[in-house]
Amino acid sequence: MNLTEQVIRSFQNIENERHRFLITTFIKKLHEYVRETEPSEQEWEQAIRFLTDTGKLCHEQRQEYILLSDVLGVSMLIDQILHEKNEVQTPSTVFGPFFIDNMPIRPFGSSIISDDAAAPPLLVRGKITDIEGNPVAGARIDVWQTAENGMYSGQDPHQSTDNLRGVFLSQEDGSYAFQTILPVSYPIPDDGTVGKLMAYAKRSVWRPAHIHFKIEADGFQGLVTHLFLEGDEYLQNDAVFGVKDRLIVRYSEEKADDTSRERYGLNTDYRLIEYDFILTGDESRER
Amino acid sequence: MNLTEQVIRSFQNIENERHRFLITTFIKKLHEYVRETEPSEQEWEQAIRFLTDTGKLCHEQRQEYILLSDVLGVSMLIDQILHEKNEVQTPSTVFGPFFIDNMPIRPFGSSIISDDAAAPPLLVRGKITDIEGNPVAGARIDVWQTAENGMYSGQDPHQSTDNLRGVFLSQEDGSYAFQTILPVSYPIPDDGTVGKLMAYAKRSVWRPAHIHFKIEADGFQGLVTHLFLEGDEYLQNDAVFGVKDRLIVRYSEEKADDTSRERYGLNTDYRLIEYDFILTGDESRER
Repeated sequence: MNLTEQVIRSFQNIENERHRFLITTFIKKLHEYVRETEPSEQEWEQAIRFLTDTGKLCHEQRQEYILLSDVLGVSMLIDQILHEKNEVQTPSTVFGPFFIDNMPIRPFGSSIISDDAAAPPLLVRGKITDIEGNPVAGARIDVWQTAENGMYSGQDPHQSTDNLRGVFLSQEDGSYAFQTILPVSYPIPDDGTVGKLMAYAKRSVWRPAHIHFKIEADGFQGLVTHLFLEGDEYLQNDAVFGVKDRLIVRYSEEKADDTSRERYGLNTDYRLIEYDFILTGDESRER
Repeated sequence: MNLTEQVIRSFQNIENERHRFLITTFIKKLHEYVRETEPSEQEWEQAIRFLTDTGKLCHEQRQEYILLSDVLGVSMLIDQILHEKNEVQTPSTVFGPFFIDNMPIRPFGSSIISDDAAAPPLLVRGKITDIEGNPVAGARIDVWQTAENGMYSGQDPHQSTDNLRGVFLSQEDGSYAFQTILPVSYPIPDDGTVGKLMAYAKRSVWRPAHIHFKIEADGFQGLVTHLFLEGDEYLQNDAVFGVKDRLIVRYSEEKADDTSRERYGLNTDYRLIEYDFILTGDESRER
């Protein structure tokens, strides 16, 4: 019995079959890695130091291991495996570390801008539907995004917590709408072990601008996704591999008119993104 | 190009070929793991939490990641790959976390017991030779072991730092000798993430009793190894997989006689271990 078999056998007393599989498969892969790469003691020490330092950087407001999982493409790989069992539903993407739960529920069409913003308003609107195009009413739509300085509330002490965040509910006809500003591209935190790794690999730490969505509705699988902006210079090399073609949208420049004034209180020129989110039924969920 | 290929490509700008290989092979194996096990988001979160907590436990006196590497058999696997290129040399084993550098150089045959000990004295003696049996003079032999309470100095605040530690130099004829007490079996630190994992897997956290050796001599590969005691109840399931048959020794009970009195100052009954260490030449070192 070789060493790998011995180690795997030592974990056979784990009763939960799934956990036993997860742990012993990990050992198998880790030993394969060591056999293929034959690390020197110094190299292994360096790996241990990297793992240790990554853990030490984590605190309530920072999760360097999730960031590592993101830049190694693992978060997106898991997303890919778990979601998109059909081609029609809106693709999902990474959740990211900047979500804050229990933000205020805001009225249809209202603004998520709590702090002053110089940028022109952006109206985002569309429908929530099922895969056959039927409207989904009462869906809970969490949105969050960066301010003009590339930072999220929670990350930036100068922003109100609810700035550029909010929850909307879809109407009877499935429609949703909210006002915001354009998000901007921003670098992932690069002052830790992940930043060092990215610099060593000469990889860009930038993420293309995006608005986050987390959509939940009874009878449907939850959807965690972004909308990206067409033309963003980082679409091709998102540091966390989150971009999918169907999530790239273009915005149009619009003039204020009677409808925009009456419906949304928009008295100035504004920008407009129209996007429909397609949810898939809960019954097709695999786990 | 699938996601794994995309991620691997993002690391192609690492100039050092060896580092590029180590990192991209790791990504390949990690993605294979994810594809084979299809972790749920909750399972992945739990893995992230485990890695984070393991890092946070580390400080100057504790390295939980090395312990993890030990109980997953990786430390021994690396040892196996790097050493024992021939069958004659003394097998190596894990270094462990309890070594302290720069301990006093002690005279041939003297004792490493700095604090009081109730156990009968143990004399350990033998030769350092090359693989052809020629004596190796002037080899530097670092020894360290547990006290009767199963703890090492450094780990146990009640012990003097140099208790049961010391450096010996081999004589012209290759011989070495020192006095100590029998080491005892002990549990690895089990109050952290590794301990939780071991408990969950119903694995024993015990290590069989052993004396550590680190032997260095000009022109020879360094040797890091243990001597284990025959009959120890944990030889078959060492928590860190460190036991090798050729490292198991038996001790004999001896009566004080003129030689023991004159040569080692042993006036009482004592125990004796005789063991020769065989070093292999530096030229066969692969890296």
